[in-house]
Amino acid sequence: MSRILIQNATIIPMTSKEDIFQGHIYIEDGKIVRLYNKREREEVSFPLEMTDLEIIDGQDKVVIPGLVNAHTHAAMTLFRGYADDLPLMEWLNDAIWPAEKKLTDEHVYWGTMLAIAEMLKGGITVFADMYFFMDQVAKAVSDSGIRGHLSRGMIGFGPTSEKALVESEEFYRKWHEGADGRIRVWLGPHAPYTCPPDYLQKVMALADRLGTGLHIHLAETKKEVEDIQKEHGLRPIELMNKIGLFERPVLAAHCVHLTEEEENILVEKKVGIAHNPESNMKLASGIAPIESLRQKKAIVGLGTDGAASNNNLDLIEEMRQATFLQKVNLLDPTALPAYDTLAMATIGGAKALGWDHEIGTLEVGKKADLAVIDMKQPHLYPVHDPVAHLVYSAKGSDVHTVIVDGKVLVRAGKLTTMNEEQIMTEAQKAAVVLTSKEG
Amino acid sequence: MSRILIQNATIIPMTSKEDIFQGHIYIEDGKIVRLYNKREREEVSFPLEMTDLEIIDGQDKVVIPGLVNAHTHAAMTLFRGYADDLPLMEWLNDAIWPAEKKLTDEHVYWGTMLAIAEMLKGGITVFADMYFFMDQVAKAVSDSGIRGHLSRGMIGFGPTSEKALVESEEFYRKWHEGADGRIRVWLGPHAPYTCPPDYLQKVMALADRLGTGLHIHLAETKKEVEDIQKEHGLRPIELMNKIGLFERPVLAAHCVHLTEEEENILVEKKVGIAHNPESNMKLASGIAPIESLRQKKAIVGLGTDGAASNNNLDLIEEMRQATFLQKVNLLDPTALPAYDTLAMATIGGAKALGWDHEIGTLEVGKKADLAVIDMKQPHLYPVHDPVAHLVYSAKGSDVHTVIVDGKVLVRAGKLTTMNEEQIMTEAQKAAVVLTSKEG
Ligand SMILES: [Zn+2]
Ligand SMILES: [Zn+2]
Repeated sequence: MSRILIQNATIIPMTSKEDIFQGHIYIEDGKIVRLYNKREREEVSFPLEMTDLEIIDGQDKVVIPGLVNAHTHAAMTLFRGYADDLPLMEWLNDAIWPAEKKLTDEHVYWGTMLAIAEMLKGGITVFADMYFFMDQVAKAVSDSGIRGHLSRGMIGFGPTSEKALVESEEFYRKWHEGADGRIRVWLGPHAPYTCPPDYLQKVMALADRLGTGLHIHLAETKKEVEDIQKEHGLRPIELMNKIGLFERPVLAAHCVHLTEEEENILVEKKVGIAHNPESNMKLASGIAPIESLRQKKAIVGLGTDGAASNNNLDLIEEMRQATFLQKVNLLDPTALPAYDTLAMATIGGAKALGWDHEIGTLEVGKKADLAVIDMKQPHLYPVHDPVAHLVYSAKGSDVHTVIVDGKVLVRAGKLTTMNEEQIMTEAQKAAVVLTSKEG
Repeated sequence: MSRILIQNATIIPMTSKEDIFQGHIYIEDGKIVRLYNKREREEVSFPLEMTDLEIIDGQDKVVIPGLVNAHTHAAMTLFRGYADDLPLMEWLNDAIWPAEKKLTDEHVYWGTMLAIAEMLKGGITVFADMYFFMDQVAKAVSDSGIRGHLSRGMIGFGPTSEKALVESEEFYRKWHEGADGRIRVWLGPHAPYTCPPDYLQKVMALADRLGTGLHIHLAETKKEVEDIQKEHGLRPIELMNKIGLFERPVLAAHCVHLTEEEENILVEKKVGIAHNPESNMKLASGIAPIESLRQKKAIVGLGTDGAASNNNLDLIEEMRQATFLQKVNLLDPTALPAYDTLAMATIGGAKALGWDHEIGTLEVGKKADLAVIDMKQPHLYPVHDPVAHLVYSAKGSDVHTVIVDGKVLVRAGKLTTMNEEQIMTEAQKAAVVLTSKEG
C-alpha cells in the first residue's frame, strides 16, 4: 500500500472559495482519504511511524488539484518553434502538414513523452489529446504515469475515413480504462469542415454503441464559420446541434466565434468547452467569449492546444492569458476573476472531459491528482491571496511536487518516472527527420 | 581586473538577425572586448591560464543582451496580489493609494530589492523606475549591482509640487552617473492629468538645465484621453507636442490610445515608448498599436509596469503577451514577429531609455550587460529557431546567468549579491504594515 501525507500546506480544494484552508492531505492507494485542518490534525492520532509513509512538507507551499489540459496534440511538441509568424494556410500547407506526413509511431511516442515531461513539470496531471498513432500516446501515458483522455483524430472524407472508424473502435477496446484506469478513450472527429454530417452520424452511432463521448474542434476561425455557413446554411454550433451531436458528452475545442444563441446551445446541452487562448492569439483566430460563457455557467476548461501553436504547454501561463485577454477585450478589469480562472484549469476541465467524478477537486474519495507549488520565491512575495499569486504571478517552473493517481511523478521539480535526457535526445532526432526539406 | 569568457554559446547580439552566431564572448573590466566565432576562437591564442578568468560554459545556452524593463514602479512589488479583479478607481482609491500613503523609505528599499531580485533572476539588467523615496531605489541599485534609469515621480498640483522639482534636482545631482555609472537620472512628471501644462513647463526647464530627459505616463486609458481633451481641446500626445515636451529625450509609458497622427508625432519626435501589455490587459486599459508603431519605425521598448498591475516582473513572459496580443487584435499571425519582439525587449528599450550607446546589444565596446539562457529543457525542445523559443516558449526561470557591468549577478539561477531570504522577510514585514486596515 502506498501512503502520502502532505502537511502544513495551504490547500485550495476548488470545491468553493471558502474551502481554502491550512492543513494536511492524507493519500492512500491512489485516493484522497482525508483532509485535515490544523486543529483536527492535532486531535487525530496519526500513524506517522508507518514505514511506507512519504511525508511532503507543505510549508510555504500551496496544494491545488492537478491542472487539466483540456485540449492538446501532445506530439506536436516536435514542431515547436519550427515555423512561426506565418499566415495560417502557409503554416499548415508548407510547414506542419508536410512534416506530419512523415510521422511514424516512434516519433509520436517521443513527441508525446516530451509533452508529458513538460506538462508534469508544470503541474498538469491529465491531458485531452487528439492525434494519430494513438497506441503510442497511450503507451506514453502508461509509461509516464500521467492521466490521459485520448481520441484518435478522424477525417471524414477520403480513403481513410472508414478506417478511422474501425481503428477508433479498436483503440477504444484496447485502451479505454487502461493503465490502471488512467486512460479514457473518446472518439475524435476532427472538425465540421473535415467531417461532413453524414460521417458525423457514423461517429455518433459508434460513440453511442461504445457508450463514450466525442472530442472535436468547433468554431475556431472566422473562415470555418463562413465555410460551414456557405455549405450548410447554418453556423458550426447550429449545425452540430441540428444533427444531434450534443446529445452525448462532447468536448469542443476553441468555440471562438459564437453568437448569443450558440452560446446558449452550448450551455443548455452541457457541452464541455476547451478554451485555448494562447493558440487563438498566436494563430490570430480570435477571442472566445469566455466571460459571457462563465456568467451563463457553461462548462469551460482550459487547454494549451499543440505546442506548435502556443508554443509551450504551461497551463499556469495559460490561466494568466485567459483572464488578461477577457479583461482587455471587454475593457473590464473585473472580468474572469482569479478564482474562476483557476477553476477553469481544474474542475472546469475535469467536467469538460466528463471526468469530474474522479478528478478536478481535492475531495475525500477522489483520485489523488494534485500539484504542490512552491510559493517562497521573490516573484510570489509578499504573501497575500494565494489564488491571485497562482493566476497572476506564478510560472510552470514554480511547481514543486506532482502526484497522479497517488504516485509522486515530480519531486522537488524533478521527474521520477521519465528519463528527461533521453526524451530530449529522441525528440531532437525525430524533429530533424520530420523537418528536413528532403523527401 | 575582472575577466569573463563565455564559450561555445549561441549568441544573439541583436544588431541584426543575420548576426546570430555560435561562438564566444570575452569580457574585461565591465565591457565586451571581443566576440569570436568558433573558427576565430581556435586561431586566437587565448590566455586561458589567466587566474582571474571566469569561464562560463555556453553549451546548450543562448546569450542575449540583458533585458531592458522600460517602465516599472519597482517597490510596488509590495502590493503584488493585494487587491486584484477590481474596477480601476476602486483599486486605486480603496487599495493602492491608502497603502502607498503609509510608505516609508525603508519599505521602498525592501520593495525595490524584492523587485530587483525577481528582475535579475529573469534576465533583466536595467529598469526604468518612477516612484517615491528614490534615494532608497538608488541605494538598492547600488547595493544589488543592477543598472537603473531612475525618476522621482512628480505631481504637478498641491503643496508638494514645488518640492518635487527641488527634490528631483537634488536626486539628479546626488545620483546621476552614480553607482559606477550604473544609474542615470531623468525627471518623472507623472502624467498630463496630474501635471498641468504650466507645471510641465517648469519640469522641462529643469530638465534642460540639467541636460536630462523626462519619464512620463501618456495616453494610458480612454478616460485620460477624454479628460485631457475636455480640458485642453487636444488629445494627450497632441497637447504634449504643442507645449514642446518632445523637444528633449522623453520616455513615454503606455501610449495605448493613439490616433494615426499621434503615432506620427511619436515617430517624428523620436519619443521612446514603453509598451506594457500585461498591465494594459490586467487593468483593462486597452491594446496599444504596437505593430503599426513598429512598421513606422517608432522607438518602442517593453516594460512590466508595477507588480500590482501585472503581477510579475517577467519580461520574457511580457514578450509573449506583446506579440500574441498584436496578432489576435489584428487577426494577423504575422504581426510583431519573434525577432522584433526580442528587439523591443533589448535594443528597443535601450533606445527608449536613451542608453543605447552603452547597452541593448552585444557589441565590442558596449557594457557587458547580458543574460545566458539554459535551452536544455523539455519546454525548449526540440532545437529549432532560438529566437522563436525565447519569445514563444521560454520562461523567466530559464535564465541561468546574468551579468551587469561585467559582474556576474546571477550564477546558475542564484543571486550572487543579494540575500533573497532576508529580502522576502523584510518585504513581507513591510506589506503587512502597508496593507493592514487600521491607521
Ligand atoms: Zn487543436
Ligand atoms: Zn506606470
